[in-house]
Amino acid sequence: MKFNNRNVFISPSAKIGKNVRIGDNVSIYDNVIVKDNTTICNDCVIGEPLSDYYDNDSYQNPTTIIGKSTMLRSHCIIYAGTELGNNFSSGHRVTIREYTKFGNNCRVGTVSDIQGHSSFGNHCWLHSNVHIGQKSTIGNFVFIYPYVVLTNDPTPPSNICNGPTIGDYSQIAVFSILLPGVKIGKHALIGANSVVGKNVEDYQLVMGSPAKFIKDVREIKSRETGEQHYPWPQHFERGMPWEGIGFNEWEKSNLND
Amino acid sequence: MKFNNRNVFISPSAKIGKNVRIGDNVSIYDNVIVKDNTTICNDCVIGEPLSDYYDNDSYQNPTTIIGKSTMLRSHCIIYAGTELGNNFSSGHRVTIREYTKFGNNCRVGTVSDIQGHSSFGNHCWLHSNVHIGQKSTIGNFVFIYPYVVLTNDPTPPSNICNGPTIGDYSQIAVFSILLPGVKIGKHALIGANSVVGKNVEDYQLVMGSPAKFIKDVREIKSRETGEQHYPWPQHFERGMPWEGIGFNEWEKSNLND
Amino acid sequence: MKFNNRNVFISPSAKIGKNVRIGDNVSIYDNVIVKDNTTICNDCVIGEPLSDYYDNDSYQNPTTIIGKSTMLRSHCIIYAGTELGNNFSSGHRVTIREYTKFGNNCRVGTVSDIQGHSSFGNHCWLHSNVHIGQKSTIGNFVFIYPYVVLTNDPTPPSNICNGPTIGDYSQIAVFSILLPGVKIGKHALIGANSVVGKNVEDYQLVMGSPAKFIKDVREIKSRETGEQHYPWPQHFERGMPWEGIGFNEWEKSNLND
Repeated sequence: MKFNNRNVFISPSAKIGKNVRIGDNVSIYDNVIVKDNTTICNDCVIGEPLSDYYDNDSYQNPTTIIGKSTMLRSHCIIYAGTELGNNFSSGHRVTIREYTKFGNNCRVGTVSDIQGHSSFGNHCWLHSNVHIGQKSTIGNFVFIYPYVVLTNDPTPPSNICNGPTIGDYSQIAVFSILLPGVKIGKHALIGANSVVGKNVEDYQLVMGSPAKFIKDVREIKSRETGEQHYPWPQHFERGMPWEGIGFNEWEKSNLND
Repeated sequence: MKFNNRNVFISPSAKIGKNVRIGDNVSIYDNVIVKDNTTICNDCVIGEPLSDYYDNDSYQNPTTIIGKSTMLRSHCIIYAGTELGNNFSSGHRVTIREYTKFGNNCRVGTVSDIQGHSSFGNHCWLHSNVHIGQKSTIGNFVFIYPYVVLTNDPTPPSNICNGPTIGDYSQIAVFSILLPGVKIGKHALIGANSVVGKNVEDYQLVMGSPAKFIKDVREIKSRETGEQHYPWPQHFERGMPWEGIGFNEWEKSNLND
Repeated sequence: MKFNNRNVFISPSAKIGKNVRIGDNVSIYDNVIVKDNTTICNDCVIGEPLSDYYDNDSYQNPTTIIGKSTMLRSHCIIYAGTELGNNFSSGHRVTIREYTKFGNNCRVGTVSDIQGHSSFGNHCWLHSNVHIGQKSTIGNFVFIYPYVVLTNDPTPPSNICNGPTIGDYSQIAVFSILLPGVKIGKHALIGANSVVGKNVEDYQLVMGSPAKFIKDVREIKSRETGEQHYPWPQHFERGMPWEGIGFNEWEKSNLND
């Protein structure tokens, strides 16, 4: 059904691993490495050249790495110089610009726009239509929900580029803005439609425009069960490395990937 | 100009009706039914297979139905298992995931992202860049404006998936968020940039973050005419089945499609 | 690497200038003029026909003009009847609908959606995911940041289409909404996540939902330098025509392009 080798372009300098499936209308440019067991669906562009390519005859495309067992859904654009870890999974029409680094087991949803020069740890899940400005630093197990924007210029327009930092296990709910340079601690929760201009400590729930401290996340009860839901790793296992054994056991045995 | 039969892929198991136009670079996968007089513009993907396809050798693509006289503009992705009614019309780059059901005469704008497992009645108009989370239920004659998000997880991340419900004739203005499980009545109006966490009754205008009751929509005056504008079906006819006869007459004669 | 003349369609009636590079999978439809030294990257559609094309056998595609030294990144859709000035530069997946006019030296970011029938002066920079409703009027040197929406219908749905107006040198920060018909003066600054329903005077900073006057922009200090940052043209030169000579000198000598 898919993978008919129709209208596919692969640069001679690209290195394609074993058991890789490449969809129709895919372009893979110079110096791309695609590791084993990865699937690149139709209409993707991998190793998109940087601006310099169009003007500079001696341009060399920086190395792009697509990890093992990755699934890139159709119409994604991954720029040269970017590195996706193993088991990366994307929605459709994702754009990831140059010099972005994703750890292992990350997911990025449809139409998300990663502006480049940013880093993500392991097990980050970005939902649809997330916008990550340049120079953002995101930890491990961070969930970012739809239409969240990370900004980096405090007095636009300027030459300052100071992206936000998000700590491990934190959650940024739909339609929130992280203002330039803001630091979010671990296990924090940013409520929907918040504008976060001040640093957020570990375990804080903040909300509003401007975002204000509401309560400790450990005081939040699940609407369904009426019981404590945060820190969420103790109550959510699907797709996590502690699935089946529980977060506390996993943390103790240090089974980190 | 368009429709040159260039680089088109159509599965042998797809059923294409009479007078169907198919644009260049279109892929139509297994078990897709395209009904008569429909236009599928260039670079669309119809019957996109579900995740299971990539791992399961015995995968069967569920049936996808594209209704009569439909217009899909370029670069849309319609997943397998989805059903679009007659006279459906889309913008560009729309993504509609699996098991979504649209009634007749619906429109969905550019870059909108329907996450699947949701249903829409007849005559729904979704503008650009609308995000509909899974398990949403939308009635008839519902208008959803740009950058509206319907969510479904009250304590993220969790295994709860409880989408909102929107009643007939209601309007959701730009940049509003419907929180998980919220129920919007009929003829309601959600003002711009609202976060709706509580149910909204018929004919209510609500607004703000969190959204609060402002007034009955029947008290709103048109800025242009200074007269009552809501319920809007009595003051807006373009593209509606009561065009030329008026809503009251149409409702009486029950000329519903 | 790119520009292999693979799967390219160019209408016989299109006029392509000197030194134009056209990417793979590009479609250029009737009556498109592409001026010298322009680059159109892969998967772009130029001169996309209007709705009338699909039903009217005598349809003539209106003239589309792509200026000199323009860079359209991949997957953009430019409708017929639109005119882009010289040195235009786009991100990916930009949609610009019919009868939009851009001056010279404008930039539009990834996934932005210009609904048509709008005009932009020179040196406008639209960031990613900006939505410009029909009948919007934007001056010169206007910066619009991600997820900003310009609306035009005060009592939806209605037949009123009354877009906003933005004066020269003004800045609209992330996630702001301009309500129908609103007029923004020159050198104004709209803070993040604002809903602007009333006119904004020259040099005003407004913010909030609804947006309220906060202070004169000339009272804002840069976080980095602690000094005055606005009017920004006196403190920001990158890519501006006053680069190297300063805004005041440039303004005096009237070196306007």
